[in-house]
Amino acid sequence: MSQLEEKTLHSEKIFSGRVISLQVDEVKLPNGRTSTREIVKHPGAVAVIPITSDGKIVMVEQYRKALEKTIVEIPAGKLEKGEEPASCARRELEEETGYECKHLEWLISFYTSPGFADEMVHLYIATGLQKKEHAASLDEDEFVHVIELELDEAEQCIHDQRIFDAKTAYAVQYLQLKASVQK
Amino acid sequence: MSQLEEKTLHSEKIFSGRVISLQVDEVKLPNGRTSTREIVKHPGAVAVIPITSDGKIVMVEQYRKALEKTIVEIPAGKLEKGEEPASCARRELEEETGYECKHLEWLISFYTSPGFADEMVHLYIATGLQKKEHAASLDEDEFVHVIELELDEAEQCIHDQRIFDAKTAYAVQYLQLKASVQK
Repeated sequence: MSQLEEKTLHSEKIFSGRVISLQVDEVKLPNGRTSTREIVKHPGAVAVIPITSDGKIVMVEQYRKALEKTIVEIPAGKLEKGEEPASCARRELEEETGYECKHLEWLISFYTSPGFADEMVHLYIATGLQKKEHAASLDEDEFVHVIELELDEAEQCIHDQRIFDAKTAYAVQYLQLKASVQK
Repeated sequence: MSQLEEKTLHSEKIFSGRVISLQVDEVKLPNGRTSTREIVKHPGAVAVIPITSDGKIVMVEQYRKALEKTIVEIPAGKLEKGEEPASCARRELEEETGYECKHLEWLISFYTSPGFADEMVHLYIATGLQKKEHAASLDEDEFVHVIELELDEAEQCIHDQRIFDAKTAYAVQYLQLKASVQK
């Protein structure tokens, strides 16, 4: 699909922060004209659907400054430099929920906001959960409440917009589909 | 959940562009310490799952500069100032695919990247599609190829990572769940 591609004529770094950086690219469009693209660079992230032995989904309630809201999400976090997504998934699960898992299965990876950001989320499902006695702790600027939900409670949270983000909505739908296929 | 909230001490505007703006907030954390949050502001967007009378899903192939990749997505676009999401959905459907729809049903709204951005996508399903003779055209810096896929072809595109973004992955899973429930 090379006829859709845009060629970079110039790239201007605007900002480089702790989590994201921002650049504005001047591009040559397929019709030969030029335009600009505002692009957020992100290290990528993982998210985990942790399922307890009695079939509950472990989630975390977290304040999101970008939204000025507290929402309920599956455990997730940024990749550290050079970190394998599966290792990151185990680390974030432990830090945010205190659980370690026997089984971790990759489900899907997707870009969250392809229009302006390169953030990719790698999604896993974790089973064989066990509470760890001395679990690794959260980042020092991270505060969460752990909750465990039945699938129908998670569906209600989507209805009430307490679950309000793409990866968690995808996760709940994944479990609905799984339950539907198993019927 | 007020004990999770972060209070803004100071907000610094870094950038204001055509699509996004960027600010860095200094916040007071629940434990009294301070930290910073890098926040991208976005006007919000809509996405549409257009289903033809013979059950195909209409998608668009589009180059995404942020990813340096051409991917396959459901039609989507940014809200214009003051625009109702449903009107925006009809407009984007027409501009990107040439279809107008008789029926438009809201499915879900979600934040795409709550860790650093306030972008919300409003997702609709569109049926009763008809090709419009003089369809509104794309933005002058937008280039897409329209394709129509069976559900199993869309599933294959996910497997091949040609469909590679959260809203489209959600949309395909939504149709899988719908097909599964109808069986």
